[in-house]
Amino acid sequence: MPRFFMAGSNIAGGVAVIKGQDADHVRVLRMKLGEKLVISDGEGTDYNCVLSRMGENIIEARVLDSLPSPAEPSVRCIVLTGFSKGDRSDYTVQKSVESGASEIVFFPCERCVSRPDGKSLDKKIMRWQRIAEEAAKQAGRGIIPVVSAASDLASAINLAIKTDLPLFLYETGDRIPLKQAIENTAPLTSAAIMTGPEGGFEPFETELAKHAGMLICSMGPRILRCETAPVTALTSIMYATGNL
Amino acid sequence: MPRFFMAGSNIAGGVAVIKGQDADHVRVLRMKLGEKLVISDGEGTDYNCVLSRMGENIIEARVLDSLPSPAEPSVRCIVLTGFSKGDRSDYTVQKSVESGASEIVFFPCERCVSRPDGKSLDKKIMRWQRIAEEAAKQAGRGIIPVVSAASDLASAINLAIKTDLPLFLYETGDRIPLKQAIENTAPLTSAAIMTGPEGGFEPFETELAKHAGMLICSMGPRILRCETAPVTALTSIMYATGNL
Repeated sequence: MPRFFMAGSNIAGGVAVIKGQDADHVRVLRMKLGEKLVISDGEGTDYNCVLSRMGENIIEARVLDSLPSPAEPSVRCIVLTGFSKGDRSDYTVQKSVESGASEIVFFPCERCVSRPDGKSLDKKIMRWQRIAEEAAKQAGRGIIPVVSAASDLASAINLAIKTDLPLFLYETGDRIPLKQAIENTAPLTSAAIMTGPEGGFEPFETELAKHAGMLICSMGPRILRCETAPVTALTSIMYATGNL
Repeated sequence: MPRFFMAGSNIAGGVAVIKGQDADHVRVLRMKLGEKLVISDGEGTDYNCVLSRMGENIIEARVLDSLPSPAEPSVRCIVLTGFSKGDRSDYTVQKSVESGASEIVFFPCERCVSRPDGKSLDKKIMRWQRIAEEAAKQAGRGIIPVVSAASDLASAINLAIKTDLPLFLYETGDRIPLKQAIENTAPLTSAAIMTGPEGGFEPFETELAKHAGMLICSMGPRILRCETAPVTALTSIMYATGNL
Protein backbone atom coordinates (compact mmCIF):
# COMPACT_ATOMS: atom_id res chain seq x y z
CA MET A 1 0.00 0.00 0.00
CA PRO A 2 1.36 3.49 -0.82
CA ARG A 3 2.87 5.23 2.16
CA PHE A 4 3.31 8.96 2.76
CA PHE A 5 5.10 10.95 5.39
CA MET A 6 3.18 14.06 6.50
CA ALA A 7 3.57 16.47 9.36
CA GLY A 8 0.99 15.78 12.08
CA SER A 9 -0.59 19.22 11.58
CA ASN A 10 -1.97 18.18 8.19
CA ILE A 11 -4.07 15.49 9.81
CA ALA A 12 -7.00 17.03 11.68
CA GLY A 13 -10.63 16.18 12.29
CA GLY A 14 -10.25 12.76 10.72
CA VAL A 15 -9.10 14.18 7.38
CA ALA A 16 -5.57 14.35 5.97
CA VAL A 17 -4.83 17.10 3.47
CA ILE A 18 -2.30 16.02 0.86
CA LYS A 19 -0.36 18.80 -0.83
CA GLY A 20 2.74 19.56 -2.89
CA GLN A 21 5.06 16.70 -3.76
CA ASP A 22 2.87 14.21 -1.91
CA ALA A 23 -0.12 15.22 -4.04
CA ASP A 24 2.05 14.86 -7.16
CA HIS A 25 3.06 11.43 -5.96
CA VAL A 26 -0.62 10.37 -5.55
CA ARG A 27 -1.22 11.46 -9.16
CA VAL A 28 1.90 9.70 -10.48
CA LEU A 29 0.68 6.50 -8.83
CA ARG A 30 -2.66 7.05 -10.69
CA MET A 31 -4.53 6.49 -7.44
CA LYS A 32 -8.29 6.82 -7.53
CA LEU A 33 -11.03 7.87 -5.09
CA GLY A 34 -11.68 5.09 -2.60
CA GLU A 35 -8.15 3.68 -2.78
CA LYS A 36 -6.34 3.06 0.48
CA LEU A 37 -3.04 4.51 1.61
CA VAL A 38 -1.01 4.83 4.81
CA ILE A 39 -0.04 8.25 6.07
CA SER A 40 2.70 8.44 8.68
CA ASP A 41 2.88 11.58 10.77
CA GLY A 42 6.66 11.13 10.96
CA GLU A 43 6.37 10.87 14.74
CA GLY A 44 5.62 7.19 15.05
CA THR A 45 1.90 7.05 14.24
CA ASP A 46 0.51 5.46 11.07
CA TYR A 47 -2.93 6.51 9.77
CA ASN A 48 -4.83 4.09 7.54
CA CYS A 49 -6.69 6.31 5.09
CA VAL A 50 -8.89 6.21 2.02
CA LEU A 51 -8.79 8.83 -0.76
CA SER A 52 -11.95 10.91 -0.30
CA ARG A 53 -11.36 13.94 -2.54
CA MET A 54 -9.24 14.38 -5.65
CA GLY A 55 -9.38 18.05 -6.64
CA GLU A 56 -7.17 19.99 -9.05
CA ASN A 57 -5.37 21.68 -6.17
CA ILE A 58 -6.27 19.59 -3.18
CA ILE A 59 -6.32 15.92 -2.34
CA GLU A 60 -7.93 14.67 0.84
CA ALA A 61 -7.92 11.31 2.56
CA ARG A 62 -10.35 10.20 5.25
CA VAL A 63 -8.70 8.60 8.29
CA LEU A 64 -10.03 5.08 8.97
CA ASP A 65 -7.90 4.34 12.01
CA SER A 66 -4.48 5.00 13.50
CA LEU A 67 -1.87 2.85 15.19
CA PRO A 68 1.72 3.11 16.44
CA SER A 69 3.91 2.52 13.39
CA PRO A 70 4.67 -1.23 13.39
CA ALA A 71 8.03 -0.60 11.74
CA GLU A 72 9.41 1.35 14.69
CA PRO A 73 11.70 -0.68 16.93
CA SER A 74 11.01 -1.02 20.66
CA VAL A 75 14.50 0.30 21.40
CA ARG A 76 15.43 3.88 20.64
CA CYS A 77 18.98 3.83 19.21
CA ILE A 78 21.10 6.91 18.69
CA VAL A 79 24.06 6.54 16.34
CA LEU A 80 26.91 8.94 17.23
CA THR A 81 29.86 8.91 14.89
CA GLY A 82 32.96 10.97 14.13
CA PHE A 83 32.95 12.96 10.89
CA SER A 84 34.41 10.84 8.09
CA LYS A 85 35.42 11.65 4.53
CA GLY A 86 33.64 11.32 1.20
CA ASP A 87 30.54 9.22 0.89
CA ARG A 88 31.18 7.21 4.07
CA SER A 89 28.90 9.47 6.10
CA ASP A 90 26.16 9.22 3.47
CA TYR A 91 26.39 5.48 3.80
CA THR A 92 26.22 5.60 7.60
CA VAL A 93 23.07 7.74 7.44
CA GLN A 94 21.30 5.62 4.84
CA LYS A 95 22.08 2.24 6.41
CA SER A 96 21.47 3.41 9.98
CA VAL A 97 18.00 4.67 9.08
CA GLU A 98 17.25 1.47 7.17
CA SER A 99 18.45 -0.60 10.15
CA GLY A 100 16.30 1.20 12.72
CA ALA A 101 18.27 4.14 14.20
CA SER A 102 16.14 6.84 15.79
CA GLU A 103 18.68 9.63 15.48
CA ILE A 104 22.12 10.21 13.96
CA VAL A 105 24.65 12.62 15.43
CA PHE A 106 28.02 13.44 13.86
CA PHE A 107 30.80 14.99 15.91
CA PRO A 108 34.40 16.18 15.42
CA CYS A 109 37.15 14.39 17.32
CA GLU A 110 40.92 14.13 17.42
CA ARG A 111 41.56 11.99 14.34
CA CYS A 112 38.85 13.45 12.09
CA VAL A 113 40.30 14.50 8.73
CA SER A 114 36.99 16.03 7.72
CA ARG A 115 35.84 18.81 10.09
CA PRO A 116 32.98 20.66 8.42
CA ASP A 117 31.68 23.79 10.13
CA GLY A 118 29.65 26.88 9.40
CA LYS A 119 27.93 26.86 6.01
CA SER A 120 29.73 23.72 4.90
CA LEU A 121 28.31 21.84 7.88
CA ASP A 122 24.82 23.26 7.31
CA LYS A 123 24.94 21.99 3.73
CA LYS A 124 26.11 18.56 4.82
CA ILE A 125 23.40 18.26 7.47
CA MET A 126 20.77 19.20 4.89
CA ARG A 127 22.15 16.58 2.53
CA TRP A 128 22.22 13.88 5.24
CA GLN A 129 18.69 14.80 6.34
CA ARG A 130 17.49 14.29 2.76
CA ILE A 131 19.22 10.89 2.66
CA ALA A 132 17.58 10.01 6.00
CA GLU A 133 14.15 11.00 4.69
CA GLU A 134 14.53 8.93 1.52
CA ALA A 135 15.81 5.93 3.48
CA ALA A 136 12.95 6.23 6.00
CA LYS A 137 10.38 6.25 3.20
CA GLN A 138 11.98 3.34 1.39
CA ALA A 139 12.28 1.27 4.56
CA GLY A 140 8.72 2.03 5.66
CA ARG A 141 9.82 3.70 8.89
CA GLY A 142 7.28 5.51 11.09
CA ILE A 143 9.64 8.41 11.82
CA ILE A 144 12.20 10.38 9.86
CA PRO A 145 15.30 10.13 12.05
CA VAL A 146 16.89 13.51 12.68
CA VAL A 147 20.51 14.04 11.61
CA SER A 148 22.50 16.62 13.54
CA ALA A 149 26.00 17.53 14.66
CA ALA A 150 27.36 17.80 18.19
CA SER A 151 29.96 20.48 18.82
CA ASP A 152 32.53 18.03 20.24
CA LEU A 153 33.13 14.58 21.69
CA ALA A 154 32.11 15.64 25.20
CA SER A 155 28.67 16.78 23.98
CA ALA A 156 28.23 13.53 22.10
CA ILE A 157 29.18 11.51 25.20
CA ASN A 158 26.69 13.56 27.18
CA LEU A 159 23.91 12.45 24.82
CA ALA A 160 25.03 8.82 24.95
CA ILE A 161 25.13 8.41 28.72
CA LYS A 162 21.47 9.36 29.01
CA THR A 163 20.53 6.02 27.38
CA ASP A 164 20.26 2.56 28.99
CA LEU A 165 23.18 1.20 26.95
CA PRO A 166 25.91 3.73 26.07
CA LEU A 167 28.24 1.73 23.78
CA PHE A 168 31.66 3.06 22.80
CA LEU A 169 33.13 0.83 20.09
CA TYR A 170 36.89 0.57 20.19
CA GLU A 171 39.32 -1.68 18.38
CA THR A 172 41.93 -2.44 20.99
CA GLY A 173 42.65 -2.86 24.70
CA ASP A 174 40.41 -3.89 27.54
CA ARG A 175 36.86 -4.18 26.21
CA ILE A 176 33.52 -5.91 26.85
CA PRO A 177 32.21 -8.04 23.99
CA LEU A 178 29.20 -6.28 22.42
CA LYS A 179 26.99 -9.31 23.04
CA GLN A 180 27.74 -9.30 26.76
CA ALA A 181 27.05 -5.55 27.02
CA ILE A 182 23.68 -5.95 25.29
CA GLU A 183 22.60 -9.07 27.18
CA ASN A 184 23.53 -7.60 30.57
CA THR A 185 21.28 -4.59 30.09
CA ALA A 186 17.65 -4.82 31.19
CA PRO A 187 15.36 -3.11 30.62
CA LEU A 188 16.74 -1.97 27.29
CA THR A 189 14.58 0.80 25.89
CA SER A 190 17.30 3.12 24.60
CA ALA A 191 20.88 2.72 23.42
CA ALA A 192 23.71 4.84 22.03
CA ILE A 193 26.29 3.58 19.55
CA MET A 194 29.45 5.67 19.40
CA THR A 195 32.07 5.03 16.71
CA GLY A 196 35.13 6.91 15.49
CA PRO A 197 36.25 8.37 12.17
CA GLU A 198 38.56 6.53 9.69
CA GLY A 199 41.52 6.66 12.07
CA GLY A 200 39.52 5.59 15.12
CA PHE A 201 39.66 7.18 18.56
CA GLU A 202 42.69 8.37 20.51
CA PRO A 203 43.29 6.48 23.78
CA PHE A 204 42.53 9.65 25.79
CA GLU A 205 39.14 9.92 24.09
CA THR A 206 38.37 6.34 25.05
CA GLU A 207 39.39 7.08 28.65
CA LEU A 208 37.09 10.10 28.69
CA ALA A 209 34.17 8.00 27.46
CA LYS A 210 34.92 5.33 30.06
CA HIS A 211 35.09 7.80 32.93
CA ALA A 212 31.79 9.31 31.79
CA GLY A 213 30.16 5.90 32.13
CA MET A 214 30.24 4.52 28.60
CA LEU A 215 30.84 0.81 27.96
CA ILE A 216 34.02 0.25 25.94
CA CYS A 217 33.06 -2.58 23.58
CA SER A 218 34.56 -4.90 20.99
CA MET A 219 32.85 -6.35 17.93
CA GLY A 220 34.98 -9.40 17.30
CA PRO A 221 38.30 -10.03 15.61
CA ARG A 222 37.53 -8.53 12.20
CA ILE A 223 38.36 -4.87 11.62
CA LEU A 224 35.24 -2.99 10.52
CA ARG A 225 35.37 0.19 8.44
CA CYS A 226 34.18 3.35 10.14
CA GLU A 227 30.99 3.43 8.07
CA THR A 228 30.19 -0.25 8.76
CA ALA A 229 30.78 -0.38 12.52
CA PRO A 230 27.69 1.58 13.65
CA VAL A 231 25.41 -0.44 11.36
CA THR A 232 26.83 -3.73 12.68
CA ALA A 233 26.22 -2.65 16.29
CA LEU A 234 22.73 -1.38 15.45
CA THR A 235 21.80 -4.63 13.70
CA SER A 236 23.07 -6.58 16.70
CA ILE A 237 20.86 -4.59 19.07
CA MET A 238 17.84 -5.01 16.78
CA TYR A 239 18.49 -8.74 16.55
CA ALA A 240 18.99 -9.18 20.30
CA THR A 241 15.86 -7.23 21.24
CA GLY A 242 13.51 -8.97 18.80
CA ASN A 243 13.30 -6.04 16.41
CA LEU A 244 14.58 -7.98 13.42
CA MET B 1 51.52 -5.75 12.74
CA PRO B 2 51.71 -5.80 8.90
CA ARG B 3 49.66 -8.59 7.38
CA PHE B 4 50.12 -10.26 4.00
CA PHE B 5 48.07 -12.74 2.04
CA MET B 6 50.21 -15.35 0.26
CA ALA B 7 49.42 -18.60 -1.47
CA GLY B 8 50.37 -21.58 0.74
CA SER B 9 52.91 -22.81 -1.81
CA ASN B 10 55.20 -19.86 -1.05
CA ILE B 11 55.56 -21.01 2.53
CA ALA B 12 57.77 -24.10 2.68
CA GLY B 13 60.43 -25.46 5.02
CA GLY B 14 59.74 -22.79 7.62
CA VAL B 15 60.51 -19.95 5.18
CA ALA B 16 58.09 -17.67 3.34
CA VAL B 17 59.27 -16.17 0.07
CA ILE B 18 57.81 -12.69 -0.51
CA LYS B 19 57.60 -11.56 -4.12
CA GLY B 20 55.98 -9.06 -6.46
CA GLN B 21 53.48 -6.59 -4.98
CA ASP B 22 53.92 -8.04 -1.49
CA ALA B 23 57.67 -7.41 -1.68
CA ASP B 24 56.97 -3.86 -2.87
CA HIS B 25 54.61 -3.45 0.07
CA VAL B 26 57.31 -4.55 2.53
CA ARG B 27 59.63 -1.91 1.02
CA VAL B 28 56.96 0.81 1.11
CA LEU B 29 56.44 0.08 4.81
CA ARG B 30 60.25 0.51 5.22
CA MET B 31 60.38 -2.75 7.16
CA LYS B 32 63.79 -3.93 8.32
CA LEU B 33 65.47 -7.28 8.97
CA GLY B 34 64.20 -8.76 12.23
CA GLU B 35 60.82 -7.03 12.07
CA LYS B 36 57.75 -9.16 12.60
CA LEU B 37 54.84 -9.66 10.23
CA VAL B 38 51.86 -11.99 9.82
CA ILE B 39 51.48 -14.00 6.64
CA SER B 40 48.09 -15.54 5.94
CA ASP B 41 47.99 -18.42 3.48
CA GLY B 42 44.51 -17.28 2.46
CA GLU B 43 43.13 -20.63 3.58
CA GLY B 44 42.59 -19.88 7.25
CA THR B 45 46.12 -20.25 8.67
CA ASP B 46 48.17 -17.32 9.96
CA TYR B 47 51.98 -17.56 10.13
CA ASN B 48 53.85 -15.33 12.57
CA CYS B 49 57.09 -14.49 10.78
CA VAL B 50 60.23 -12.40 11.10
CA LEU B 51 62.03 -10.80 8.15
CA SER B 52 65.18 -12.87 7.61
CA ARG B 53 66.46 -11.76 4.20
CA MET B 54 66.00 -8.48 2.33
CA GLY B 55 67.57 -8.92 -1.11
CA GLU B 56 67.25 -6.78 -4.21
CA ASN B 57 65.01 -9.37 -5.84
CA ILE B 58 63.95 -11.57 -2.98
CA ILE B 59 62.58 -11.07 0.49
CA GLU B 60 62.31 -13.95 2.90
CA ALA B 61 60.64 -14.33 6.28
CA ARG B 62 61.31 -17.08 8.79
CA VAL B 63 58.19 -18.72 10.22
CA LEU B 64 58.05 -18.52 14.03
CA ASP B 65 54.75 -20.33 14.48
CA SER B 66 51.38 -20.83 12.85
CA LEU B 67 47.80 -20.79 14.11
CA PRO B 68 44.26 -20.90 12.72
CA SER B 69 43.42 -17.33 11.76
CA PRO B 70 41.67 -15.81 14.80
CA ALA B 71 39.56 -13.56 12.56
CA GLU B 72 37.75 -16.46 10.89
CA PRO B 73 34.25 -17.08 12.27
CA SER B 74 33.26 -20.49 13.61
CA VAL B 75 30.31 -20.58 11.19
CA ARG B 76 30.88 -20.86 7.46
CA CYS B 77 28.35 -18.51 5.81
CA ILE B 78 27.64 -18.47 2.09
CA VAL B 79 25.89 -15.37 0.74
CA LEU B 80 23.78 -16.15 -2.34
CA THR B 81 22.15 -13.16 -3.98
CA GLY B 82 20.37 -12.26 -7.22
CA PHE B 83 22.26 -10.06 -9.67
CA SER B 84 21.49 -6.41 -8.95
CA LYS B 85 22.27 -3.23 -10.79
CA GLY B 86 25.04 -0.64 -10.49
CA ASP B 87 27.23 -0.59 -7.45
CA ARG B 88 24.82 -2.54 -5.24
CA SER B 89 26.65 -5.79 -5.93
CA ASP B 90 30.01 -4.16 -5.16
CA TYR B 91 28.58 -3.12 -1.83
CA THR B 92 27.24 -6.60 -1.08
CA VAL B 93 30.66 -8.12 -1.77
CA GLN B 94 32.61 -5.59 0.29
CA LYS B 95 30.31 -5.62 3.31
CA SER B 96 29.76 -9.39 3.27
CA VAL B 97 33.51 -10.04 3.32
CA GLU B 98 33.97 -7.47 6.09
CA SER B 99 31.13 -9.07 8.07
CA GLY B 100 32.50 -12.62 7.88
CA ALA B 101 31.06 -14.35 4.76
CA SER B 102 33.08 -17.33 3.53
CA GLU B 103 31.82 -17.25 -0.05
CA ILE B 104 29.62 -15.07 -2.25
CA VAL B 105 27.54 -16.45 -5.11
CA PHE B 106 25.49 -14.34 -7.51
CA PHE B 107 22.71 -15.87 -9.59
CA PRO B 108 20.14 -14.77 -12.20
CA CYS B 109 16.46 -15.05 -11.27
CA GLU B 110 13.07 -13.94 -12.54
CA ARG B 111 13.12 -10.27 -11.53
CA CYS B 112 16.81 -9.56 -12.21
CA VAL B 113 17.18 -6.51 -14.42
CA SER B 114 20.93 -7.08 -14.68
CA ARG B 115 21.79 -10.49 -16.20
CA PRO B 116 25.47 -10.47 -17.08
CA ASP B 117 26.83 -13.46 -18.99
CA GLY B 118 29.81 -14.46 -21.09
CA LYS B 119 32.65 -11.94 -21.08
CA SER B 120 30.61 -9.34 -19.22
CA LEU B 121 30.08 -11.79 -16.36
CA ASP B 122 33.77 -12.80 -16.36
CA LYS B 123 34.72 -9.13 -16.03
CA LYS B 124 32.26 -8.59 -13.20
CA ILE B 125 33.46 -11.66 -11.31
CA MET B 126 37.06 -10.45 -11.63
CA ARG B 127 36.02 -7.04 -10.32
CA TRP B 128 34.10 -8.52 -7.36
CA GLN B 129 36.98 -10.85 -6.57
CA ARG B 130 39.31 -7.84 -6.38
CA ILE B 131 36.84 -6.08 -4.05
CA ALA B 132 36.67 -9.25 -1.92
CA GLU B 133 40.47 -9.42 -1.70
CA GLU B 134 40.79 -5.77 -0.68
CA ALA B 135 38.02 -6.13 1.91
CA ALA B 136 39.58 -9.32 3.30
CA LYS B 137 42.94 -7.60 3.71
CA GLN B 138 41.42 -4.52 5.31
CA ALA B 139 39.27 -6.55 7.71
CA GLY B 140 42.17 -8.84 8.67
CA ARG B 141 40.40 -11.96 7.42
CA GLY B 142 42.25 -15.28 7.25
CA ILE B 143 40.78 -16.23 3.88
CA ILE B 144 39.92 -14.40 0.70
CA PRO B 145 36.28 -15.35 0.15
CA VAL B 146 35.64 -16.60 -3.38
CA VAL B 147 33.07 -14.75 -5.51
CA SER B 148 31.35 -16.77 -8.22
CA ALA B 149 28.11 -17.03 -10.19
CA ALA B 150 25.62 -19.89 -10.23
CA SER B 151 23.88 -20.59 -13.54
CA ASP B 152 20.38 -20.26 -12.09
CA LEU B 153 18.25 -20.21 -8.93
CA ALA B 154 18.05 -23.99 -8.75
CA SER B 155 21.86 -24.32 -8.65
CA ALA B 156 22.02 -21.65 -5.95
CA ILE B 157 19.37 -23.45 -3.88
CA ASN B 158 21.34 -26.65 -4.31
CA LEU B 159 24.37 -24.99 -2.70
CA ALA B 160 22.27 -23.53 0.12
CA ILE B 161 20.56 -26.73 1.25
CA LYS B 162 23.90 -28.41 1.93
CA THR B 163 24.37 -26.09 4.93
CA ASP B 164 22.96 -26.42 8.45
CA LEU B 165 20.85 -23.27 8.09
CA PRO B 166 19.58 -22.54 4.55
CA LEU B 167 17.88 -19.14 4.92
CA PHE B 168 15.70 -17.70 2.16
CA LEU B 169 14.83 -14.09 3.02
CA TYR B 170 11.46 -12.99 1.76
CA GLU B 171 9.41 -9.87 2.42
CA THR B 172 5.86 -11.17 2.60
CA GLY B 173 3.63 -14.12 3.48
CA ASP B 174 4.16 -16.99 5.89
CA ARG B 175 7.69 -16.75 7.27
CA ILE B 176 9.81 -17.73 10.26
CA PRO B 177 11.47 -14.82 12.12
CA LEU B 178 15.21 -14.92 11.41
CA LYS B 179 16.00 -15.09 15.13
CA GLN B 180 13.87 -18.20 15.59
CA ALA B 181 15.46 -19.90 12.58
CA ILE B 182 18.95 -19.21 13.93
CA GLU B 183 18.22 -20.16 17.54
CA ASN B 184 16.48 -23.41 16.56
CA THR B 185 19.53 -24.67 14.67
CA ALA B 186 22.17 -26.65 16.54
CA PRO B 187 24.88 -27.39 15.81
CA LEU B 188 25.35 -24.40 13.57
CA THR B 189 28.61 -24.74 11.65
CA SER B 190 27.45 -23.57 8.23
CA ALA B 191 24.70 -21.32 6.90
CA ALA B 192 23.43 -19.97 3.59
CA ILE B 193 21.81 -16.57 3.17
CA MET B 194 19.74 -16.22 0.01
CA THR B 195 18.35 -12.82 -1.01
CA GLY B 196 16.73 -11.47 -4.17
CA PRO B 197 17.52 -8.67 -6.61
CA GLU B 198 15.97 -5.14 -6.42
CA GLY B 199 12.48 -6.44 -7.21
CA GLY B 200 12.67 -9.39 -4.82
CA PHE B 201 11.66 -12.96 -5.57
CA GLU B 202 8.59 -14.21 -7.44
CA PRO B 203 6.21 -16.30 -5.32
CA PHE B 204 7.00 -19.41 -7.44
CA GLU B 205 10.71 -18.98 -6.67
CA THR B 206 9.92 -18.86 -2.97
CA GLU B 207 7.82 -22.02 -3.29
CA LEU B 208 10.69 -23.76 -5.07
CA ALA B 209 13.10 -22.81 -2.28
CA LYS B 210 10.63 -24.00 0.36
CA HIS B 211 10.05 -27.35 -1.31
CA ALA B 212 13.81 -27.81 -1.61
CA GLY B 213 14.07 -27.44 2.17
CA MET B 214 15.04 -23.80 2.65
CA LEU B 215 13.68 -21.78 5.59
CA ILE B 216 11.56 -18.86 4.39
CA CYS B 217 12.49 -16.07 6.81
CA SER B 218 11.55 -12.53 7.73
CA MET B 219 13.82 -9.79 9.07
CA GLY B 220 11.33 -7.59 10.84
CA PRO B 221 8.95 -4.89 9.71
CA ARG B 222 11.42 -2.60 7.96
CA ILE B 223 12.02 -3.07 4.25
CA LEU B 224 15.71 -3.63 3.59
CA ARG B 225 17.37 -2.81 0.28
CA CYS B 226 18.65 -5.76 -1.72
CA GLU B 227 22.27 -4.88 -0.95
CA THR B 228 21.61 -4.47 2.79
CA ALA B 229 19.55 -7.61 3.45
CA PRO B 230 22.37 -10.20 3.17
CA VAL B 231 24.65 -8.14 5.41
CA THR B 232 21.92 -7.78 8.05
CA ALA B 233 21.33 -11.55 8.08
CA LEU B 234 25.06 -12.27 8.18
CA THR B 235 25.61 -9.86 11.08
CA SER B 236 22.73 -11.51 12.94
CA ILE B 237 24.29 -14.96 12.54
CA MET B 238 27.70 -13.66 13.64
CA TYR B 239 26.13 -12.00 16.68
CA ALA B 240 24.06 -15.04 17.65
CA THR B 241 27.00 -17.47 17.34
CA GLY B 242 29.47 -15.40 19.33
CA ASN B 243 31.49 -14.32 16.29
CA LEU B 244 31.01 -10.62 16.91
